[in-house]
Amino acid sequence: MTLRVGVIGTGMIGRDHTRRLQQVLAGAQVVALSDYSPDAARAVGADLAPDAKIYDKGEDLIAASDVDAVLVCSTGATHEAYVLAAIAAGKPCFCEKPLATTADGAKRIVDAEVAHGKRLVQVGFMRRYDAGYVALKSAVDTHTGAPLMVHAAHRNPAVPEQYVTPMAIHDTFVHEIDVFRWLLDDDYVSARVTFPRATSASHAALRDPQIVTLTTAKGVVITTEIFVNCKYGYDIQCQVVGEEGTANLPEPQAITMRLGAKLQNDIMTDWKERFVASYDVELQDFIKAATAGTAAGPSAWDGYMAAVTCDACVTAQDADGAAVTITNPARPALYS
Amino acid sequence: MTLRVGVIGTGMIGRDHTRRLQQVLAGAQVVALSDYSPDAARAVGADLAPDAKIYDKGEDLIAASDVDAVLVCSTGATHEAYVLAAIAAGKPCFCEKPLATTADGAKRIVDAEVAHGKRLVQVGFMRRYDAGYVALKSAVDTHTGAPLMVHAAHRNPAVPEQYVTPMAIHDTFVHEIDVFRWLLDDDYVSARVTFPRATSASHAALRDPQIVTLTTAKGVVITTEIFVNCKYGYDIQCQVVGEEGTANLPEPQAITMRLGAKLQNDIMTDWKERFVASYDVELQDFIKAATAGTAAGPSAWDGYMAAVTCDACVTAQDADGAAVTITNPARPALYS
Amino acid sequence: MTLRVGVIGTGMIGRDHTRRLQQVLAGAQVVALSDYSPDAARAVGADLAPDAKIYDKGEDLIAASDVDAVLVCSTGATHEAYVLAAIAAGKPCFCEKPLATTADGAKRIVDAEVAHGKRLVQVGFMRRYDAGYVALKSAVDTHTGAPLMVHAAHRNPAVPEQYVTPMAIHDTFVHEIDVFRWLLDDDYVSARVTFPRATSASHAALRDPQIVTLTTAKGVVITTEIFVNCKYGYDIQCQVVGEEGTANLPEPQAITMRLGAKLQNDIMTDWKERFVASYDVELQDFIKAATAGTAAGPSAWDGYMAAVTCDACVTAQDADGAAVTITNPARPALYS
Amino acid sequence: MTLRVGVIGTGMIGRDHTRRLQQVLAGAQVVALSDYSPDAARAVGADLAPDAKIYDKGEDLIAASDVDAVLVCSTGATHEAYVLAAIAAGKPCFCEKPLATTADGAKRIVDAEVAHGKRLVQVGFMRRYDAGYVALKSAVDTHTGAPLMVHAAHRNPAVPEQYVTPMAIHDTFVHEIDVFRWLLDDDYVSARVTFPRATSASHAALRDPQIVTLTTAKGVVITTEIFVNCKYGYDIQCQVVGEEGTANLPEPQAITMRLGAKLQNDIMTDWKERFVASYDVELQDFIKAATAGTAAGPSAWDGYMAAVTCDACVTAQDADGAAVTITNPARPALYS
Ligand SMILES: NC(=O)c1ccc[n+]([C@@H]2O[C@H](COP(=O)([O-])OP(=O)(O)OC[C@H]3O[C@@H](n4cnc5c(N)ncnc54)[C@H](O)[C@@H]3O)[C@@H](O)[C@H]2O)c1
Ligand SMILES: NC(=O)c1ccc[n+]([C@@H]2O[C@H](COP(=O)([O-])OP(=O)(O)OC[C@H]3O[C@@H](n4cnc5c(N)ncnc54)[C@H](O)[C@@H]3O)[C@@H](O)[C@H]2O)c1
Ligand SMILES: NC(=O)c1ccc[n+]([C@@H]2O[C@H](COP(=O)([O-])OP(=O)(O)OC[C@H]3O[C@@H](n4cnc5c(N)ncnc54)[C@H](O)[C@@H]3O)[C@@H](O)[C@H]2O)c1
Ligand SMILES: NC(=O)c1ccc[n+]([C@@H]2O[C@H](COP(=O)([O-])OP(=O)(O)OC[C@H]3O[C@@H](n4cnc5c(N)ncnc54)[C@H](O)[C@@H]3O)[C@@H](O)[C@H]2O)c1
Repeated sequence: MTLRVGVIGTGMIGRDHTRRLQQVLAGAQVVALSDYSPDAARAVGADLAPDAKIYDKGEDLIAASDVDAVLVCSTGATHEAYVLAAIAAGKPCFCEKPLATTADGAKRIVDAEVAHGKRLVQVGFMRRYDAGYVALKSAVDTHTGAPLMVHAAHRNPAVPEQYVTPMAIHDTFVHEIDVFRWLLDDDYVSARVTFPRATSASHAALRDPQIVTLTTAKGVVITTEIFVNCKYGYDIQCQVVGEEGTANLPEPQAITMRLGAKLQNDIMTDWKERFVASYDVELQDFIKAATAGTAAGPSAWDGYMAAVTCDACVTAQDADGAAVTITNPARPALYS
Repeated sequence: MTLRVGVIGTGMIGRDHTRRLQQVLAGAQVVALSDYSPDAARAVGADLAPDAKIYDKGEDLIAASDVDAVLVCSTGATHEAYVLAAIAAGKPCFCEKPLATTADGAKRIVDAEVAHGKRLVQVGFMRRYDAGYVALKSAVDTHTGAPLMVHAAHRNPAVPEQYVTPMAIHDTFVHEIDVFRWLLDDDYVSARVTFPRATSASHAALRDPQIVTLTTAKGVVITTEIFVNCKYGYDIQCQVVGEEGTANLPEPQAITMRLGAKLQNDIMTDWKERFVASYDVELQDFIKAATAGTAAGPSAWDGYMAAVTCDACVTAQDADGAAVTITNPARPALYS
Repeated sequence: MTLRVGVIGTGMIGRDHTRRLQQVLAGAQVVALSDYSPDAARAVGADLAPDAKIYDKGEDLIAASDVDAVLVCSTGATHEAYVLAAIAAGKPCFCEKPLATTADGAKRIVDAEVAHGKRLVQVGFMRRYDAGYVALKSAVDTHTGAPLMVHAAHRNPAVPEQYVTPMAIHDTFVHEIDVFRWLLDDDYVSARVTFPRATSASHAALRDPQIVTLTTAKGVVITTEIFVNCKYGYDIQCQVVGEEGTANLPEPQAITMRLGAKLQNDIMTDWKERFVASYDVELQDFIKAATAGTAAGPSAWDGYMAAVTCDACVTAQDADGAAVTITNPARPALYS
Repeated sequence: MTLRVGVIGTGMIGRDHTRRLQQVLAGAQVVALSDYSPDAARAVGADLAPDAKIYDKGEDLIAASDVDAVLVCSTGATHEAYVLAAIAAGKPCFCEKPLATTADGAKRIVDAEVAHGKRLVQVGFMRRYDAGYVALKSAVDTHTGAPLMVHAAHRNPAVPEQYVTPMAIHDTFVHEIDVFRWLLDDDYVSARVTFPRATSASHAALRDPQIVTLTTAKGVVITTEIFVNCKYGYDIQCQVVGEEGTANLPEPQAITMRLGAKLQNDIMTDWKERFVASYDVELQDFIKAATAGTAAGPSAWDGYMAAVTCDACVTAQDADGAAVTITNPARPALYS
């Protein structure tokens, strides 16, 4: 059986996911496309899914009887409404991050899904599907002993001029927020932000770098260096320290060369390459669950917890180094 | 358009390729299965392709009007006949290695394909699709300068009792033979085999390890250590030395741990894991070309050259360290 | 000219330094030994310096006319008095860390040396002489750009039962305190301590691990994980993040082996091996300067600053995560 | 007791060894210097050993009653005569490689030392004292199981114009010849040389690179790539493959940096840096043995065996890929 998918939002990631469903992955077919700009939808259809129907309104796409499942790839601010509509229609829905732009919005989705009584939503936290993180989680579960500390780094070579301090949380650190909750199987209880001397490569509206310290319910302390003008490359580092030993996230595979008095590997500079393989795996997981009428992987609850944690981190950015408490609402049975 | 594929030989690799076409890759569907043991074909059908028709004879599968392309995954000795039948039927054909068990047999396939006038055959030399080798080739093409030497190692932890000295060439080294021709874009002109002291883990009918030295038409000298009872793991190593520098095949991604006074990574022990991702890529390439009515990737000519080189290496095993000349037949225009 | 040295304190490190002067390094000779236990001094003399005179009192050794320079290797609490005596005698003096057990005591030494008008004291902060740190400093000075952050780890496999929380600062972290001041050519302005979940390998009087965050006058933020029951080995890690890139302290040289499905290096378990070569270099530097009647390397000022910083860190251990301000006294011209 | 040393030959290495004895190592003093050019000897004396007496003739230095031991650091062709004179005088003698320029010459030294009845000669094969090779030998002795194969590389960035093909053996590969005999505790029985395509960086009188294959009495096969115009750096590589696993010579310690889209370490370009620490250790070993009136470390027999092996390798360079047999003379009891 082939899953019939409708894609809402045919920008960069919407186009890329359409390509995955049409050309890379087994078991799905894009039958419907929609974008705020119908021309954008038509262009993606022409290139990748000539048989797909173009809808002016995402809501109509969701309602269409030949659409089994929905991908929400539009601008973040529009996610909440589309996901709520998909739940209302009882259709599995893959929603790119963020689930909603506010914690309250994410909470409304959680409430709707809980009321529906079955999981329908997968949030696009693709790092959980990255082979490196999966192997790291296995190492932590089987070898390092109880985790005590995590040290991580999220570095971009540069960011656009309009990128300002809070975006380091919402657009950048949000991936660490989700992946460490999953890696440690834990929740956050406090956040603290420290600002080292700023790089001269940044500007007044972006304090860069920053160090975020998260503490979990089990007492794990996670320090993450966020540095989005690091110049040298796109680089994601992570070491877990447990009672028995440590485990590191692997470096991306690279050719070691000896050239010009240097032993060297390339470091990526484009973030889009770093987790590219994990997008395939997350969508394959979505196809599998959606074909069975449900959803797996990162849940609406995870999306909600990420939103709550982002809010605390942004508050902490203005707290002059003080810790900000994170209150965790009770977890509905649907997500346990 | 979905490519309708028939699979001949539903043993270990035939089952695995069927799974790929049905569950992993876009664009194909297994519509026919055949095996010397019809029960084996039926079992694979039941598990992975319930709608596929079971054929008692591979020839009937090839002839079936709803079969667009053929995968030959049966025992090596049966490949030649099936590939010739596929060419006769004008159908694209993916043939697991070896193309044929003799150089003469491979030559007959080359002649048939040349007579047909269009490529239809892809041989299952999957290493050409491995991300590590692809990156290594790019490094050699763009950074190391003209290649002068290659040093490689092919190590298995152990082999079954019936594995004897010549199998180190036909079953093991054949992958290096093909991948280095492709990596260097070159042909072999001589082979030499040296036997170091044998490991006590081997037996009289298997001289292990052995060192094969191949020289190419351009003068590159390739030394490969073949060691199939190395105990510690399945390990594929390769360093290219060029005029400007060196490049190494990357290690498989692994988690670095600090545990018990050791800084350590796991080494694989099962060869099936080492290039598992490359099987997906090779078949995706086959689907793409076959959908267009032709074949790409490792050709019948490459399969033939591998057979010729294997024969020289086996002769060299009995030549007491002397070099054995490899004569290269003229390459038909179809393969240039 | 051979420097005639007297050694006070012939315990573990006093014996080892005597061996260095007698058997490893050029230019010095141990002519006098003293210990609280005269038998200990005699035993070291018998083994390593048969011609050395044994003094019952360290003060007499310092005063002896044939002693050109002094090594203070006795218990920490006795350092201050001996160093002050050496300064009073106008003799170069190498003092094992700590310079004094209180900041006030260290201050008295600084005052005495300043009054004397010439440097006579070298403190035993040997990491500054470690080839790895020296290379790291060079990399920071020439390649990484202005330092913004440092992340470090100081891990011991285990500590004796009597090791309690503040000792993690005075006995363990003190080496990072000194070496990072030197590495960054900077001073500390605040300290913060965070306690993650404690390892089950520790006990009530030792909160382990702990994370110390130091901020420098230039704004560099240094986070150090101190973990003295890490089980797996003695491990010193450090990464400097600058405006242009990062540089890591090198791992100790080790043989990479492939054995039993592991790619592995040994990690040291005995801290005494980790910086053993740097002791040779620090004493060679002492011999050279002392032969010229002065002292080089880590100064009394550095010893004082280390003491001040240690005090702030210990205060921070009880400050529930709050930052403790470090006030830097004015630096006398002698040390600029 | 201080060993009184005379140094013959005060060129590059003679000066450097004089510095070691005077400024770095304990237990020795340079009391005499001699060089074909007395000005050269005087200059070294003035810089490093003002009290040393200058001798016009090396023989007179050897005979001087206040000279306890001799360092022969003159041009290779003069070694044999000086070493024979030292043996005749019954004085311990450190001789830089080569022991003699011919196997016959080395044999005469062996005969003289055997006749003397006690070891007096240490040959300057310093790699045996390199911490990396020492650790590798320990790994081979305790972890890898019986050695079966060794793969090595000796690479220089460039060589002077007058460097011709046989010098790759006598000046370059001779270090591998000695160190692998020691590492494996074995003797060579045959040598083979293969010439890959030459680098365009070389010239007609230097076939570069070349691959030397040595086989040992125990059957170990050692393949070494000699590449003296490799451009990228001075690089010494070695992997031992044993029945249980492999062990690699460690890379020189280096700072790993992340800069400009590269993860990188420096590679040395000056061979003089690569084993600089081992010169200290070899001379310390010489001082210790010479103080006791004898010699340790690489023996005259080792120097002789190196000369015999070099001759076979040079013969093999002209043997068109054929193996040249190496006949090992009986080893005198003095060297067992
Ligand atoms: N998981 C990841 O690593 C990752 C990577 C990239 C983007 N994203 C997320 O995917 C989403 C889209 O990002 P992008 O880079 O493709 O952005 P984009 O700007 O390229 O595309 C967004 C598209 O949404 C369309 N759109 C806007 N409002 C709409 C509406 N009301 N209905 C339908 N379409 C509408 C726009 O016309 C545009 O075509 C964002 O939420 C982003 O955070 C996630
Ligand atoms: N590229 C690689 O890395 C790789 C890996 C494994 C196998 N192979 C190749 O794939 C082929 C199959 O290997 P395998 O491991 O799956 O072996 P297998 O023994 O598991 O399977 C072979 C199958 O072929 C069937 N068979 C035998 N004769 C037949 C005939 N005349 N017609 C139809 N089916 C017939 C057998 O009944 C069996 O089911 C071999 O040629 C092998 O070299 C390649
Ligand atoms: N730099 C380093 O890495 C390093 C390493 C080890 C020790 N140390 C320092 O060296 C000092 C000694 O450490 P150790 O491990 O050798 O200790 P130890 O206990 O082995 O030796 C101390 C010696 O001092 C003697 N002593 C005590 N009081 C004395 C006095 N008033 N006068 C003379 N001798 C006296 C004791 O009898 C003993 O022999 C300590 O301050 C320690 O912190 C530094
Ligand atoms: N072990 C190593 O790695 C290593 C490194 C460098 C040199 N060496 C060896 O050391 C020796 C010297 O090398 P170098 O680089 O110092 O060369 P160099 O040319 O710099 O010095 C040689 C010196 O010997 C002097 N000399 C020549 N004939 C003499 C004689 N009959 N009596 C006394 N002195 C005489 C010359 O005047 C010159 O000063 C060579 O045999 C070389 O192979 C070994």
